[in-house]
Amino acid sequence: MNGKLNIGIVGLGRLGSLYANYFANRLPDANLVAVSDVRQEVAKQIAHEYKAKNWYQGYKDLIADEDVEAVVIVTPTKFHTEVAVHAARAGKKIFCEKPLSLSIEGSVEIKDVVEETGAFFQLGFMRRFDSGYLTAKNKADSGEIGNRVQFKSTSRDRERPDLDYLRPENSGGLFVDMGIHDFDLARWLMGEVKSVYATGGVLAYPEMSEIGDVDNAIVNLYFEDGTIGAIDLSRNAIYGYEICSEILGTNGALQIGYHRETPLQVMKANEISHDVVPGFYERFEKAYIDQLQNFVDNVLVNSPPTITADDGLKALLIALAATKSLHENRPVELSEFR
Amino acid sequence: MNGKLNIGIVGLGRLGSLYANYFANRLPDANLVAVSDVRQEVAKQIAHEYKAKNWYQGYKDLIADEDVEAVVIVTPTKFHTEVAVHAARAGKKIFCEKPLSLSIEGSVEIKDVVEETGAFFQLGFMRRFDSGYLTAKNKADSGEIGNRVQFKSTSRDRERPDLDYLRPENSGGLFVDMGIHDFDLARWLMGEVKSVYATGGVLAYPEMSEIGDVDNAIVNLYFEDGTIGAIDLSRNAIYGYEICSEILGTNGALQIGYHRETPLQVMKANEISHDVVPGFYERFEKAYIDQLQNFVDNVLVNSPPTITADDGLKALLIALAATKSLHENRPVELSEFR
Amino acid sequence: MNGKLNIGIVGLGRLGSLYANYFANRLPDANLVAVSDVRQEVAKQIAHEYKAKNWYQGYKDLIADEDVEAVVIVTPTKFHTEVAVHAARAGKKIFCEKPLSLSIEGSVEIKDVVEETGAFFQLGFMRRFDSGYLTAKNKADSGEIGNRVQFKSTSRDRERPDLDYLRPENSGGLFVDMGIHDFDLARWLMGEVKSVYATGGVLAYPEMSEIGDVDNAIVNLYFEDGTIGAIDLSRNAIYGYEICSEILGTNGALQIGYHRETPLQVMKANEISHDVVPGFYERFEKAYIDQLQNFVDNVLVNSPPTITADDGLKALLIALAATKSLHENRPVELSEFR
Amino acid sequence: MNGKLNIGIVGLGRLGSLYANYFANRLPDANLVAVSDVRQEVAKQIAHEYKAKNWYQGYKDLIADEDVEAVVIVTPTKFHTEVAVHAARAGKKIFCEKPLSLSIEGSVEIKDVVEETGAFFQLGFMRRFDSGYLTAKNKADSGEIGNRVQFKSTSRDRERPDLDYLRPENSGGLFVDMGIHDFDLARWLMGEVKSVYATGGVLAYPEMSEIGDVDNAIVNLYFEDGTIGAIDLSRNAIYGYEICSEILGTNGALQIGYHRETPLQVMKANEISHDVVPGFYERFEKAYIDQLQNFVDNVLVNSPPTITADDGLKALLIALAATKSLHENRPVELSEFR
Repeated sequence: MNGKLNIGIVGLGRLGSLYANYFANRLPDANLVAVSDVRQEVAKQIAHEYKAKNWYQGYKDLIADEDVEAVVIVTPTKFHTEVAVHAARAGKKIFCEKPLSLSIEGSVEIKDVVEETGAFFQLGFMRRFDSGYLTAKNKADSGEIGNRVQFKSTSRDRERPDLDYLRPENSGGLFVDMGIHDFDLARWLMGEVKSVYATGGVLAYPEMSEIGDVDNAIVNLYFEDGTIGAIDLSRNAIYGYEICSEILGTNGALQIGYHRETPLQVMKANEISHDVVPGFYERFEKAYIDQLQNFVDNVLVNSPPTITADDGLKALLIALAATKSLHENRPVELSEFR
Repeated sequence: MNGKLNIGIVGLGRLGSLYANYFANRLPDANLVAVSDVRQEVAKQIAHEYKAKNWYQGYKDLIADEDVEAVVIVTPTKFHTEVAVHAARAGKKIFCEKPLSLSIEGSVEIKDVVEETGAFFQLGFMRRFDSGYLTAKNKADSGEIGNRVQFKSTSRDRERPDLDYLRPENSGGLFVDMGIHDFDLARWLMGEVKSVYATGGVLAYPEMSEIGDVDNAIVNLYFEDGTIGAIDLSRNAIYGYEICSEILGTNGALQIGYHRETPLQVMKANEISHDVVPGFYERFEKAYIDQLQNFVDNVLVNSPPTITADDGLKALLIALAATKSLHENRPVELSEFR
Repeated sequence: MNGKLNIGIVGLGRLGSLYANYFANRLPDANLVAVSDVRQEVAKQIAHEYKAKNWYQGYKDLIADEDVEAVVIVTPTKFHTEVAVHAARAGKKIFCEKPLSLSIEGSVEIKDVVEETGAFFQLGFMRRFDSGYLTAKNKADSGEIGNRVQFKSTSRDRERPDLDYLRPENSGGLFVDMGIHDFDLARWLMGEVKSVYATGGVLAYPEMSEIGDVDNAIVNLYFEDGTIGAIDLSRNAIYGYEICSEILGTNGALQIGYHRETPLQVMKANEISHDVVPGFYERFEKAYIDQLQNFVDNVLVNSPPTITADDGLKALLIALAATKSLHENRPVELSEFR
Repeated sequence: MNGKLNIGIVGLGRLGSLYANYFANRLPDANLVAVSDVRQEVAKQIAHEYKAKNWYQGYKDLIADEDVEAVVIVTPTKFHTEVAVHAARAGKKIFCEKPLSLSIEGSVEIKDVVEETGAFFQLGFMRRFDSGYLTAKNKADSGEIGNRVQFKSTSRDRERPDLDYLRPENSGGLFVDMGIHDFDLARWLMGEVKSVYATGGVLAYPEMSEIGDVDNAIVNLYFEDGTIGAIDLSRNAIYGYEICSEILGTNGALQIGYHRETPLQVMKANEISHDVVPGFYERFEKAYIDQLQNFVDNVLVNSPPTITADDGLKALLIALAATKSLHENRPVELSEFR
C-alpha cells in the first residue's frame, strides 16, 4: 500500500453516507475509492459528492474492484453476512457496522470465514471510542474504583425511528438493534454475561404491537463472575438522545454521559434550563471518526482488529437471550444457546 | 387537646434520639412528654436532654402514661407489631417507622388492629416528604411528563452498617431494610407492582455471606398496568450516600437526587471536584422533620394518615417477593403471597 | 449564668422575627426572654408566639430588663449606634446585624464604646458561616490554591425590595446595604482593600432614580497586597437569589454558590430545567442559625467575638469608597477616609 | 470561480498550521493552494502535508500567486497591516486573524485601504461562532432576557504562554492579546463601550515584570447606553482553559461556558471529580472551522464580511484604553483616542 488505505463502502443509508463523508474529509490516511448501493442514483451521487472514483449498484462489483483494499459494510443488518463472507473470501480488509448479524447462524458464518481465510475483520461499536467510555475503561482497568460490582446503562432514542426500520425482521428488535450497544459495553467494561432477565412493553407507541416489538425494556444482567447489571432501553426520551452508563466498584464509581449540547444556561423567572443532546450523530461524531481511524490504523500497521466477530457474536447472544427472556418471562442462561 | 400533641417515643437508637430532638426543638405543635428504651440509662439521659417529663424502660409503661397522646415507634423492626398493637388498643395515636414489620403476619396484625380499633396509624417513609420527590410526584400526577412508562431508583449506603444490625432476623435483609424505600416510591410514583425479579450477590463485604444476606442487588419491577422499573441497591458507595430516582414518561422525564453537599467547586490542576453527600441525616433531615410535622398536623386536625399500614404491607410484599426471587432465581408474582 | 444565654431582641422586622424563632426553637443554648419593637402589637405578638417572657415598645426598657443578658440588634441600620452604645454601657453582650452603621461616625462610636467598656460585641455577616464560604476559607488558608490573586463576587436580589427600605437614608444605598456582604468576604478571604472603582446605573427600575440610588453596579477592588477583585451587584436577577464568589489562586480556584433549590431535573422536549434559589432565607438559613449559635457559644465560653465592630467599620469604608467612586467617577483610596 | 475558493495562508505558526489542516480537510468549499512562512522549511513541509500546490517564504510571492483567490493572514500581529494592505491592493479576498493590529494607526491603515479598494476583508473572532455564544446572542437579540443591563466575561489561560510571545511589542500585552476577545464580545453582545477602568498586577509569574506586562487584570466597562460590564483576565488558571461570559437582563440571564472536557464523573471517597478543558483548540475547534466556513461562504455568495476591520479597530480601542487606564490608574474614555 502507498501509505493510505483505499476504501469501498457498501450501503449508503444514513450512516453509510456519513462514513463516506468521514473517509473523504476527516480521515487523512484513507482514500474513498468506491461506493455501492442498490439505489443506483444514490451511489452515483455520493461518489460524485465525495470524489470516489467508482460507484456500483451491486456490492459484488465493489468487492471485485481492484482499487478497493478495504470494504466497509453499512448495509441493513440482514445483508451483513453475505457481504462480509464475500469480502473475506475476496481477500479484502473488512469493517462491519453493528450488529454483526440478526442470527447466531449468520454470526457464526462470518466468524468461521474470518478464521478460515485469515481476513482482517473489525466490528463497529463506536461507544468504545467515546472519550467518556474510553477513560472509564482505563480507570476501571487500572483499579481506580477497586473491584467492579455493578454495571448500569441507559439507551434512549429521542423518538421512535421509522416503523419499517424497526420491524424485527429488519432491526432484530429492541435488544438486537439498540440494546446491543449496552450489551457490548457490559462485556467490555465488566466481563462475560451468564444469564439475563428482561421485562418490557409497548408503552409509548401502540403501533409497535403491530410489528411485534416493545418500545421500553429493562434487562437484568448476571455476569459469570457473580457481578450484576441493569440496562434500560426506551424509544421515547423526548428530552433528547440519552446514553449514559455507570460502573460501581468497591472503591468508587464512574458515571459516563451528559445531557447538554450547547454550553449555555438560560436563567428565567423560576427556571434555569439548557438544551438537550439531539441525536447519535452529535453525541458520537468524534467516536465514529476515531473508530474508523482506528480501523484504518490497525490495517495499515498490521494490528489485530480492536473489536472482533466474536465480540459481535457474544453481544448478539445476550440480545437474543434478553429477547427470549422477554417472551418467556424467565431468566435465560446464555448457555442455552450453545 | 390543648392545641399541642403530647408525644411519647418508644426506642431511642440513632433515629429515635434524632426524633426526640426534632419533637423537642423543631416541631412547635408537639410536646415531647415521655421516652422509653430498654436501656434505662439512655431513656433517662434523653428525657433529661430534651426535657421530657417522663422516661420508662418498658414501652407498656410509656403507653400507659396518660400524658402521652401519641406513640412514636422507633424500635428495632421486630418489635413494631407488639408495640403498635398495644398502643392501638390503648387508644393512642401512632407513628411507626419503616418497615412496618419483618413479616406478612406482623404487618397484617397491625393492619387488622388498626381497622378494628379505628386507631390513627401513620407509617414513616420520609422520602415522600423530600422536596425533590414531592415535586416530582406533583408534576407526574399533573401530567407534565405524559404517561409514565419506566421507574428507576438507586439506594446506596456509603458503607456497610453494623453487621449485627444487618442480620436478616433484625433488618429483614437488603430488600426489607433498604429496598423498602424504593418499593414504596415505586408504588407511590407509579402504581401497584405485579411481579419482580431480583439478582444480587456478596460482592464487596465477604462477611455478608456469614449473616446470609447480599450487599448488592438489582430488582426488576413489572407493574400491574404493564409499566416497568429497575431498582439497584448497594452497601458500598464509598463516594457518598446516593439516593436518586427517575420517572420516564411519554412526554418527558423527572430525575431526582443530587451528589454534592457543600456549595463549593474546587478547581485544581487537571481536576475539578466537589464533596459528597455524607449520609441519610444530611440528605433527609428536612424530610424527616416535615414527615413528623405532617403526622402531628394530621392528628391535630383529624386528617387521615398520609401513609397507612396497608402501604407498609404492600411495600413489604414487594421486598419479600424480591427476596424470594433472589433465592429461587425466577420472577415472583406478588399474588403468590396472598 | 445557668448554662443558657438569655436573649433580648430589639427590632422585629423580617429578620428580627426570624431570629426570635431561631432563638426560641433552634438554639438550645439560648433562652428568648424579651423582645422589643416600636410597633407595640408586633412585640406583644412575637413575644407570645415564641414564649418570650417580656415584651417592650422601647429598646431602653428591654436593655433595662435584668433577665436580658444579651441584646440582639436587628433594627433598621440607622438605629444601630444608639442601641449598641446603650447596651454596651448597660453591660450587655451584643449581637448586631450588618451593616454596623450608615456612617463612619456611627461605626467609630460603637467601636470606641466597645473598647472603652470592654463589652462583648459581635457583628453579623452570616455568609462567613455558610458551609461553602467556610470551606473555601479553610482551603484557601491552608494553601490549597497557592497564592490568592483574584477575588470575584456576585450578589443579586431576585427583585427590588420595597422602595422605602431602599432609600439611601435607610439602607445606605446599594453598596452599604448589599455590597457590604461582598466587601466583608473580600477582606475575610483576601485581605485589606486599598482602593476601589465603581460603575453603576439605574438600568432596571426607573423609580430608583427618585430615591437617588442605582440598581446595578460593578466594583473593582485593589487590595493592599496588589491582588485584585471585582464585585457585581444587581437588584433584578429574576431567575433567583444569586450569591456566588470565587477565589483564583496560583494553584487552583474555589468557586462558591449554587443555582438549584429542589433536587429535581425536569426533562422536557428540547429543554432540561430546574428551579431556582428563592431568597436569602432559603440560601442562608443554616448560616444564620450557625452564626447565632456561634455568638451564643462565644459568650458562654468567654471567647472573643468572631466578627468585630472593626470588621464592620472596615467593610463600611469600602462601601463608602465605592459610593464616592460611583459619584465622582474615579478610583477612590480608602485612605481618603482616614 | 469554480465553486471552490482557492486559499493561500500567510504565517504557519500554531494557528496557521491548524488553519492549513482545516482548509485542506474540513472545509469542502475551499482549496488550500498555497502557504507561506519566513521559515522556508516549515512552508515546504506544511504544503506537502496538506497538499498545497505552492509554498513561499515571502508573503508577497504568495499574494502574487494567481491561483490564490483568498489570503488568510495568521502572521504575528505586528505584520498584519503590511500583509493585509498588500493583499487588498492585489485584489485578494482577505481573512485576518485577531487582533487587527497592535496600533490604531495600523488598524486605520487597513480600514482605509479596504474602503478605498473595496476589498473583501473579514476579521477573526472565533468566539462569535461558538454555539454557546451564538445562541446567547440570538436569545438576547430576540428579547428573551429583556433589556440587557450587565455583561461579565472571563478569559483564563491554563498557564503563561511563551515569554517571547507575550512581550507587549509582539502580543500587544494582556488586553490586546487576550482581552480583545472579551472586548469584541462586549461590543457584539451589548453595544459600544464609552469608558473603561482597569486594575491588574504581576501576581503569578514574576518574570512578567521584566517584559513589562501583567498576568492578571480586571476591566470595568461602561457602555454608551449606560449599561455596565466587568472582564477578568488571568494567565494562571491551572485548572484548565476557562472562557465564560454572562449577560444579565431585566428578564433573565444567559451564562455561557463549561468546565468539563470528558463526559465522565469520577466518584471517589469524599470527592466527586471530572477533568478540565485543556485549551483553546479543544474549546473552540468547531468555532474556528465554522468561522473559516463562514468566510468562505461570504466570499462565494458575495455576502459582506461578518466581522469587519472596523470591528477590529473598535475592539482594539477598548484594549488600548484599558492599557492606558492600568498605567494611569484612572477611568479612560474611548473618545480620548479620537
